[in-house]
Amino acid sequence: MEPIPVAILGATGAVGQRFVQLLDHHPWFKVTTLCASDRSVGKTYAEGCRWLLDTPMPEWAREMVLQPTIAEVINEPIVFSALPADVAFDLEPALAQKGCVVCSNASAHRMDEDVPLILPEVNAEHVDLVHWQRQRRAWRGAIVTNPNCTSTGMTVVLKALDQIFGVKRVIAVSMQALSGAGYPGVASLDITDNVIPYIRGEEEKVSLEPRKMLGVLKDGQIKFHPVAISAQTNRVAVLDGHLVCLSVECDTRPTPEEALRALESFVTPDWLMDLPSTPKPPIVVRRENDRPQPRLDRMTGRGMSTVVGRVRADEVLDLKMVVLSHNTIRGAAGASIYNAELIVRKGLLP
Amino acid sequence: MEPIPVAILGATGAVGQRFVQLLDHHPWFKVTTLCASDRSVGKTYAEGCRWLLDTPMPEWAREMVLQPTIAEVINEPIVFSALPADVAFDLEPALAQKGCVVCSNASAHRMDEDVPLILPEVNAEHVDLVHWQRQRRAWRGAIVTNPNCTSTGMTVVLKALDQIFGVKRVIAVSMQALSGAGYPGVASLDITDNVIPYIRGEEEKVSLEPRKMLGVLKDGQIKFHPVAISAQTNRVAVLDGHLVCLSVECDTRPTPEEALRALESFVTPDWLMDLPSTPKPPIVVRRENDRPQPRLDRMTGRGMSTVVGRVRADEVLDLKMVVLSHNTIRGAAGASIYNAELIVRKGLLP
Amino acid sequence: MEPIPVAILGATGAVGQRFVQLLDHHPWFKVTTLCASDRSVGKTYAEGCRWLLDTPMPEWAREMVLQPTIAEVINEPIVFSALPADVAFDLEPALAQKGCVVCSNASAHRMDEDVPLILPEVNAEHVDLVHWQRQRRAWRGAIVTNPNCTSTGMTVVLKALDQIFGVKRVIAVSMQALSGAGYPGVASLDITDNVIPYIRGEEEKVSLEPRKMLGVLKDGQIKFHPVAISAQTNRVAVLDGHLVCLSVECDTRPTPEEALRALESFVTPDWLMDLPSTPKPPIVVRRENDRPQPRLDRMTGRGMSTVVGRVRADEVLDLKMVVLSHNTIRGAAGASIYNAELIVRKGLLP
Amino acid sequence: MEPIPVAILGATGAVGQRFVQLLDHHPWFKVTTLCASDRSVGKTYAEGCRWLLDTPMPEWAREMVLQPTIAEVINEPIVFSALPADVAFDLEPALAQKGCVVCSNASAHRMDEDVPLILPEVNAEHVDLVHWQRQRRAWRGAIVTNPNCTSTGMTVVLKALDQIFGVKRVIAVSMQALSGAGYPGVASLDITDNVIPYIRGEEEKVSLEPRKMLGVLKDGQIKFHPVAISAQTNRVAVLDGHLVCLSVECDTRPTPEEALRALESFVTPDWLMDLPSTPKPPIVVRRENDRPQPRLDRMTGRGMSTVVGRVRADEVLDLKMVVLSHNTIRGAAGASIYNAELIVRKGLLP
Repeated sequence: MEPIPVAILGATGAVGQRFVQLLDHHPWFKVTTLCASDRSVGKTYAEGCRWLLDTPMPEWAREMVLQPTIAEVINEPIVFSALPADVAFDLEPALAQKGCVVCSNASAHRMDEDVPLILPEVNAEHVDLVHWQRQRRAWRGAIVTNPNCTSTGMTVVLKALDQIFGVKRVIAVSMQALSGAGYPGVASLDITDNVIPYIRGEEEKVSLEPRKMLGVLKDGQIKFHPVAISAQTNRVAVLDGHLVCLSVECDTRPTPEEALRALESFVTPDWLMDLPSTPKPPIVVRRENDRPQPRLDRMTGRGMSTVVGRVRADEVLDLKMVVLSHNTIRGAAGASIYNAELIVRKGLLP
Repeated sequence: MEPIPVAILGATGAVGQRFVQLLDHHPWFKVTTLCASDRSVGKTYAEGCRWLLDTPMPEWAREMVLQPTIAEVINEPIVFSALPADVAFDLEPALAQKGCVVCSNASAHRMDEDVPLILPEVNAEHVDLVHWQRQRRAWRGAIVTNPNCTSTGMTVVLKALDQIFGVKRVIAVSMQALSGAGYPGVASLDITDNVIPYIRGEEEKVSLEPRKMLGVLKDGQIKFHPVAISAQTNRVAVLDGHLVCLSVECDTRPTPEEALRALESFVTPDWLMDLPSTPKPPIVVRRENDRPQPRLDRMTGRGMSTVVGRVRADEVLDLKMVVLSHNTIRGAAGASIYNAELIVRKGLLP
Repeated sequence: MEPIPVAILGATGAVGQRFVQLLDHHPWFKVTTLCASDRSVGKTYAEGCRWLLDTPMPEWAREMVLQPTIAEVINEPIVFSALPADVAFDLEPALAQKGCVVCSNASAHRMDEDVPLILPEVNAEHVDLVHWQRQRRAWRGAIVTNPNCTSTGMTVVLKALDQIFGVKRVIAVSMQALSGAGYPGVASLDITDNVIPYIRGEEEKVSLEPRKMLGVLKDGQIKFHPVAISAQTNRVAVLDGHLVCLSVECDTRPTPEEALRALESFVTPDWLMDLPSTPKPPIVVRRENDRPQPRLDRMTGRGMSTVVGRVRADEVLDLKMVVLSHNTIRGAAGASIYNAELIVRKGLLP
Repeated sequence: MEPIPVAILGATGAVGQRFVQLLDHHPWFKVTTLCASDRSVGKTYAEGCRWLLDTPMPEWAREMVLQPTIAEVINEPIVFSALPADVAFDLEPALAQKGCVVCSNASAHRMDEDVPLILPEVNAEHVDLVHWQRQRRAWRGAIVTNPNCTSTGMTVVLKALDQIFGVKRVIAVSMQALSGAGYPGVASLDITDNVIPYIRGEEEKVSLEPRKMLGVLKDGQIKFHPVAISAQTNRVAVLDGHLVCLSVECDTRPTPEEALRALESFVTPDWLMDLPSTPKPPIVVRRENDRPQPRLDRMTGRGMSTVVGRVRADEVLDLKMVVLSHNTIRGAAGASIYNAELIVRKGLLP
């Protein structure tokens, strides 16, 4: 198979760097354009990017010249977007109109009613919304989004519980990593010996996005899942990996052991099993009493698995548990790439 | 007034050091005995104690010789206990029998039915249980306890809400400081770039202790409050200050503004207002969207106030909010000292 | 004595906040103007300042309205400058011309030949340079500077050694705190689980500034001390307190014990002993093998003492030792205030 | 080639875990015995080891039963020792007598005059000391050691400089990672927001070990290199990777550019180039002004390369520079494995 050319928007940021890292040696995709903000345009990627990852910058990326963030320079069939929401708002539709499939980590269009918000093991079937999107907007391309980094892991877990017991009410308290705030992001003077109990806009996303993903697509519309979700989101001094403490109420109250079995037996649909980014298994259940931990477990399944532990009875709702997911891999760049693979598998490239 | 002699058990540990620090220049108490474990007995405090606080070790303490942890060496009317639970189990009753009032931070006897578990602004009246304790056990002294460091702040907040709206169900997720684990406590290799989602025995205490303190003392018995409490407790890379995210359901659902007013108008009983350790006010409400934070707010009210912020409507229960309390001051040594002042005020010294 | 009105330039930054904190209840000075950058002008200090210190913002400061950073709004006899060097470059001389004595922490004019660079216990006599400065520049006011935060502690120690043994060659390796980079300063993603072995412009200052302070003022000129200083400066994950490992070669090789005695017997000139900021003693010598440590020792002498430890023979030069100094107190705001007190004591206010 | 069976002593500790990790899929060696301290003997490795690394415990190791740390249970031709010095003192000679080649990371026998202390790219030829060792001690096996983790990187750099310019005097100040202290090692309460300027026994090792490795083997004796080394060693809040600031004086003063060329052209002897652990190149020179950094650069060359940067003129000696080396890979387990490969290549297995 000929490699499919892809572009990366916002290539020098924290998530953009993850795109570059994860697309190195990708079996299907080849990066042919890197876009950045005005002050870096014209520099090589090696000059314009303050590389923060602990693997070396891929050689092929070093000498690529950074392009402006405009539709004119992009002709790839797949575009990965790590743009800020305000920049994404106009540019992503322009690219979709032009024929690109934009696999976006930006929040700008996640809640548009004809834009699918996808985690393949949760709601791969929502990708059919692309047909309605194209029809309604007269686009040759499309916009496909993945959720906020904190919603990611908990939605996978809620899906596994929902399909057996039905989920009704959820209280989520997160302890989120520094990389989720981008670079430079959180000042060291703010987070050393400290926790910041507030992340702008985050709680709203965590309350709403899982309901769209757990919803049902019918006649070109997604009916949101009725689950009520309360979120408190906190920033802690961790580099990567968002930890979420969940309390969950179900329609049918499971025992912790029943819940563990539901989580352990959760599977990715067969037709997705051989996508390059599919984590196997999608959920890794830890039965030790002190796991998952961000530093030790975030790279489970090359950073694409959802890790859950401490599943036990809750004194107020039904179950409580701890969920971990790598925020810049599974919660951002890796999620967009996984969605792009789904698009290819479904034959949705224009 | 002649200073009252006091002894400190477990004087070289993390909480013991806070006792020494907080009793420096205390207007009522004078430390006359410091007890430590066998390997330090006979050394001076300066020699036997690895001082971890950022104020200097008080001069009077430096040359005091560490005594063995046995009842024979203690003749003070007030004894502060920072002992491990297993050592406290036998020694504290022996001291109470001998005539000492043991103000204990240890968990060994907190749940004994005739031992008061006290936060003065919450349940000062429970101190009358001392009469029943003396009668039942034929003790001249007494054991009076303060709660676990994580229960402390949230119980003050729950009291303020309970007396107006009634509290019915609570979900608490904590982010706890390193000093709560004592010294050496948490290994740096375990907590750097990490969160540990488990603290042994902690969730059980947080579920139960507030119910005793919010309960009613009648005829020598405490009827526990029926509130259901679910806790998930986590260790984070913070030196001091336990942060707790609460979701609360009330009998009468308050608006966030009503809850804020209840918290801001919460007062310590008049007859306690001039105790040396009384924080004024008992609850400090922060209305910024990103407070309280452990490093910035833990010393509010010299570490004795409970700080609460982010009070808002909860999508699942009624209210959510964030509570901060200094774990080794208000949640440990300061709490025991405050209780001792209550004992003196009530004339309960033998 | 009537309080002397003072202004603070750069009042909302990390060093500016220290000025506000340290001038709270200062016995001689009263803050009457706070200046800030354009985007904060017109706001109250409470609104315009993201307060980072763990003591509360003083009440008197909260409601002060932030003024523009221009000479026209300043009429105080003493002005404290926490400005960036480029802004200080023109404004400080304008203020000096107008009659203000600018006690500056900025580096802009430190090396001007007629501007004294002062640590009172080291070279208080250099303050006489103010007469020459006024004469040469036809100023009514003056500019008086204090050194870079890393130079501060090591210069005090070198002075104590120099006056007895003569210092000839020095190798200094620093481990510097985050607050030295201002706010927001160092990104948490850059320093968590890391050291950054570079601080822009720092090594040049550390090599040169001590030589001016250890120099001799004669006929309106400072003859720099001939000591050769090599510096390597590193940023580490510490909030406050710069630690410096020194290797020192002397004209007359002292034993470690002789050096310890020289350090312990170092005294501040008598006529400065009752200044409000004078640390007593100026140098605190620690004889334990693992001190000084930034978190435990930075507040020695209310953050104004220089702490030195691990004094021992060096295999290559003569002595090695570890020096600690609080970078935003002794190395910045506290140093400027101390210099202002010296100016007042010398009768150098216009 | 048939895999060579190897045993690991101290297999559950921080360095022991690195041995297990690095020997997973090793092309020459196969782990057949894991030894641990008494309280873990009889457990499986999965039960007895608190695994701290962020790659999963290898499957083959999980079910291996931990053996006692005694000569009787060990029959492998190669034994890797991660023992504490006191346990290593008697056991390593007993194993050597029995016929094992002990590749030891313990300090117990490093300075024995007939025990080679080896970094293959520095002094592979010292391995011939094994013949003298066998002769003198009537051993069939041998003890071969690698240096202390801090000495490692700087010795590689000093070798590259010494063979061209001659090194005469060195001042080294280290900033060392937490993993160097083993597990549990440094308490989080000691190192959060702090630096500890003392590591027991470390400075002595850093002053002496490089001199043995840079020395000349002649007639069964190593003549130590005369270079004078002064060391100040500090612990900082970094998980892995020791950073060392060096000032170096040479017999012939090189310019920084000459030094850079010497470092960049330093090569491993040809006959070692195809050993599995040989880093290529042995020294990686960074020319940016802020590298190397522990978190970003410690895994250079799979953690086996020495990384050097900031090479510049020194105001006191000749050159200054910053050296980084991964302390538990290149500075411990990886070094022992590399030495074992050298032993095999030289045909020195009994």
